[in-house]
Amino acid sequence: MQLQVEARLDYDFHGPVEALLHLEVAHWPGQRILSEQLSLDPPIAWSRQDDPGTGERRLVFAHAGPLKITYQALVDLDPADHALTGAAQATVASLPVEALPYLRPSRYVESDLFEQVAAADFAGLTGGDRVAAILDWMGRAMAYRAWASHATSSASSTYMSRAGVCRDFAHVAVALCRASDIPARMVSAYALGLKPEDFHAVIEVYVGGRWRLADPTGLAQPDTLVRIGHGRDAADIPFLTIFGQATMTGQSVRVLAPWPDPVRAPD
Amino acid sequence: MQLQVEARLDYDFHGPVEALLHLEVAHWPGQRILSEQLSLDPPIAWSRQDDPGTGERRLVFAHAGPLKITYQALVDLDPADHALTGAAQATVASLPVEALPYLRPSRYVESDLFEQVAAADFAGLTGGDRVAAILDWMGRAMAYRAWASHATSSASSTYMSRAGVCRDFAHVAVALCRASDIPARMVSAYALGLKPEDFHAVIEVYVGGRWRLADPTGLAQPDTLVRIGHGRDAADIPFLTIFGQATMTGQSVRVLAPWPDPVRAPD
Amino acid sequence: MQLQVEARLDYDFHGPVEALLHLEVAHWPGQRILSEQLSLDPPIAWSRQDDPGTGERRLVFAHAGPLKITYQALVDLDPADHALTGAAQATVASLPVEALPYLRPSRYVESDLFEQVAAADFAGLTGGDRVAAILDWMGRAMAYRAWASHATSSASSTYMSRAGVCRDFAHVAVALCRASDIPARMVSAYALGLKPEDFHAVIEVYVGGRWRLADPTGLAQPDTLVRIGHGRDAADIPFLTIFGQATMTGQSVRVLAPWPDPVRAPD
Amino acid sequence: MQLQVEARLDYDFHGPVEALLHLEVAHWPGQRILSEQLSLDPPIAWSRQDDPGTGERRLVFAHAGPLKITYQALVDLDPADHALTGAAQATVASLPVEALPYLRPSRYVESDLFEQVAAADFAGLTGGDRVAAILDWMGRAMAYRAWASHATSSASSTYMSRAGVCRDFAHVAVALCRASDIPARMVSAYALGLKPEDFHAVIEVYVGGRWRLADPTGLAQPDTLVRIGHGRDAADIPFLTIFGQATMTGQSVRVLAPWPDPVRAPD
Repeated sequence: MQLQVEARLDYDFHGPVEALLHLEVAHWPGQRILSEQLSLDPPIAWSRQDDPGTGERRLVFAHAGPLKITYQALVDLDPADHALTGAAQATVASLPVEALPYLRPSRYVESDLFEQVAAADFAGLTGGDRVAAILDWMGRAMAYRAWASHATSSASSTYMSRAGVCRDFAHVAVALCRASDIPARMVSAYALGLKPEDFHAVIEVYVGGRWRLADPTGLAQPDTLVRIGHGRDAADIPFLTIFGQATMTGQSVRVLAPWPDPVRAPD
Repeated sequence: MQLQVEARLDYDFHGPVEALLHLEVAHWPGQRILSEQLSLDPPIAWSRQDDPGTGERRLVFAHAGPLKITYQALVDLDPADHALTGAAQATVASLPVEALPYLRPSRYVESDLFEQVAAADFAGLTGGDRVAAILDWMGRAMAYRAWASHATSSASSTYMSRAGVCRDFAHVAVALCRASDIPARMVSAYALGLKPEDFHAVIEVYVGGRWRLADPTGLAQPDTLVRIGHGRDAADIPFLTIFGQATMTGQSVRVLAPWPDPVRAPD
Repeated sequence: MQLQVEARLDYDFHGPVEALLHLEVAHWPGQRILSEQLSLDPPIAWSRQDDPGTGERRLVFAHAGPLKITYQALVDLDPADHALTGAAQATVASLPVEALPYLRPSRYVESDLFEQVAAADFAGLTGGDRVAAILDWMGRAMAYRAWASHATSSASSTYMSRAGVCRDFAHVAVALCRASDIPARMVSAYALGLKPEDFHAVIEVYVGGRWRLADPTGLAQPDTLVRIGHGRDAADIPFLTIFGQATMTGQSVRVLAPWPDPVRAPD
Repeated sequence: MQLQVEARLDYDFHGPVEALLHLEVAHWPGQRILSEQLSLDPPIAWSRQDDPGTGERRLVFAHAGPLKITYQALVDLDPADHALTGAAQATVASLPVEALPYLRPSRYVESDLFEQVAAADFAGLTGGDRVAAILDWMGRAMAYRAWASHATSSASSTYMSRAGVCRDFAHVAVALCRASDIPARMVSAYALGLKPEDFHAVIEVYVGGRWRLADPTGLAQPDTLVRIGHGRDAADIPFLTIFGQATMTGQSVRVLAPWPDPVRAPD
């Protein structure tokens, strides 16, 4: 499946400040960048902070005043199996070393506080079945609602308020998984079919011997997600980190399936 | 300088549970393990979860019932320069990729909440000078006191209570550094001269082009620390993580300088 | 029913500090103080801060050094009906003015955070039936466990940890009631049959046209409670408030039914 | 001094819900209501929940659908002395009983968490001098900024963020006073000269033998405040409490000095 992704950010930087931009499509198995273009207007100097270990691509610049950032990419996605049901829970001994940090609590995912809730509400289930039950419960119990949360909202506050946006859903889902000893992390992505269109946040859980994507909001299909990056929670993967002050003056995201997917056409 | 470190843990595991043990001395520049011995009694099977990237060494086992864990190592430490004064603050562009996560808030270090405090109280200082001013302020304002904190205490709660143990001091120091755009992380270590003897937690900041150790409690000298591991905060580096229930029945830590350090004798 | 209550507190006050002692049996309908004795050793001066509106009796003194406080009272309790089932929920318009504050969130009862939880988990029930369902759920979901909480634990943290002591149980119960628009408050009391014996905390809810007592821990019967005072939460009703520093060196509480209750003997 | 106050609220109530309206001028020493008018459109039935103890006047109604609430009052204010400097701190023994609750922490004023901060930063000062020093520090350290806080912001979060609106300033000031053993509460009021005009929140502290008003934001003069009510914090004194769902569709507040104050004209 091919997807065309576009992002445009307009900012006004107060004084010369550094910024870290993280909206380029990741180099990641299963997604191939057929073409892409990133431009800054005015055309300022930048350097890169790419992470070869995770395939994440980040750009650093210093700037004062208005800046328009535009990014476009055409990406080819392989079909992938993200099925949760029946996917076995890994022992800690069998986990890859890189999965261990995703068992730990983090800034917006205080999974240590969820141990009793997870034990009581999802008893008897393990691995992918448990993740599926968690997502199922969230679909029934939680409301997707803009402005229900704020910058410091975390999994525990959202668990109480039962409302939020994609970031908040991801935090609660990741918290309940980690509290169940299932490695879980947050993934930033472009997603097809989101209304309104925006950057999206989903989760990835390590069950059945590998990482599998899921969208706790139910708004996007895992196989139409174009990955930007991943981290422990929203603290790790903002699309723009500003080391100083700036004002956002505009932002838009678009994701298009340029033509009917020939693989899927027969359906 | 040679140091002899010893740790002994006695636990009673409730039912067969997995555990991750992280108390072995790290493979890390500047410290050489001359000899070491780790034993579990009863002698159960284990596997390893070493991290070649960070030199951290972790062991995983599953067990039910009582278990005695003993570890001894003789370590040779190189002298190292951890001076902060005058060490320049790095631009984000100049940071190694591995340092970026240590600018982010984490479970017990909500550095996002400290931005105004850091800006107001340490204005005009950058890099190592700013870190030194932070540590100096902590030495005057904070009291080292057992039982002043609990398992969910974080940098912000400790900043209010102005009291805690090594872990709490480290969290506040790391929070103020990150809020100053200085990469900072927490290091678990064996430390010479601690009273009472215990595992210790200190910080490491990236200034003057490399990581430098400091002890916010002032209890240990940076050049007498034997490193176990590092992470974003206490969530990442517990010496024992139990994936289930267990009771600690005993614990002791000892650090000895077996003989007068010949390198230093002439002083 | 007659109950003999006794409390003994031993403290060491650091420097001359004021203290507010609140452990005398309240002047309250349904309980008559047949005899009582309060003594301070050494015999220092005190003044009173009794509240005629609530019947609460409080004593203020200033002291430095060791102090032994002993209190004994013989109290006659009327039988009372604290049945919840079928007790109608009051409209706000029909509430007595004094009940209004008990709809508001307070220090340890952030009832504003429980609105969605209360709405989701106890939908369709009102008044005493809803309170009964809340208490029933707590009896199943929460564990009574010493040291599970600390001084700053609140209803929301206990709701996550699902464990605590009487104070914590009371906070969660009051939070769920207030979030259900049912006035609820916390009552400090002497309770018969508590093991280990200590001061007790229960709740009082306004349903069916009056306040009714209930014990969320299930450890005490409402009709064997000797009331000391009430407030929004634990912040309002400590048995001793010290405006400075002091060390507790001893504390004991005893509640006795001096002879078989003749009213109940036939049972 | 005479002030004309006006408030207009437009709401849309979802389904029949009860509401408690608390925007009428209080019956309170030093302010006389010369005339007033309250109207609801459509003209629905209401009942009253006035509190003779505090002079607070509250109205309860149940409604579904749109509702316009308008209130006007002409109030004569006596000059009053709210000077803080030199006002002595009261002993607990000398406090009126009604002041005791204002020493306790509350929902948005976790004064228990501020004890160390208050002790360290305002050492050596007591009573009104200490309050003045607290307000002086706040004037230097804190920024008045809309949207810097949210519904669950409290004194401790605002103390970290160093920014907020009148409610947040009041919470921090009250917290630091209570942590200094000075009774302090929050007062809702109409204030002359506020830009933009809105309901205002200030504080009242018990020093020098009586309650004295102060505005931590510095935006209003204490002697031009028309009192609506007071409470432990913002939880107690919302101008409208809705026991269900509603949408605010409009709100305006105006405060006018109808003519030059003859008492002050000579200045």
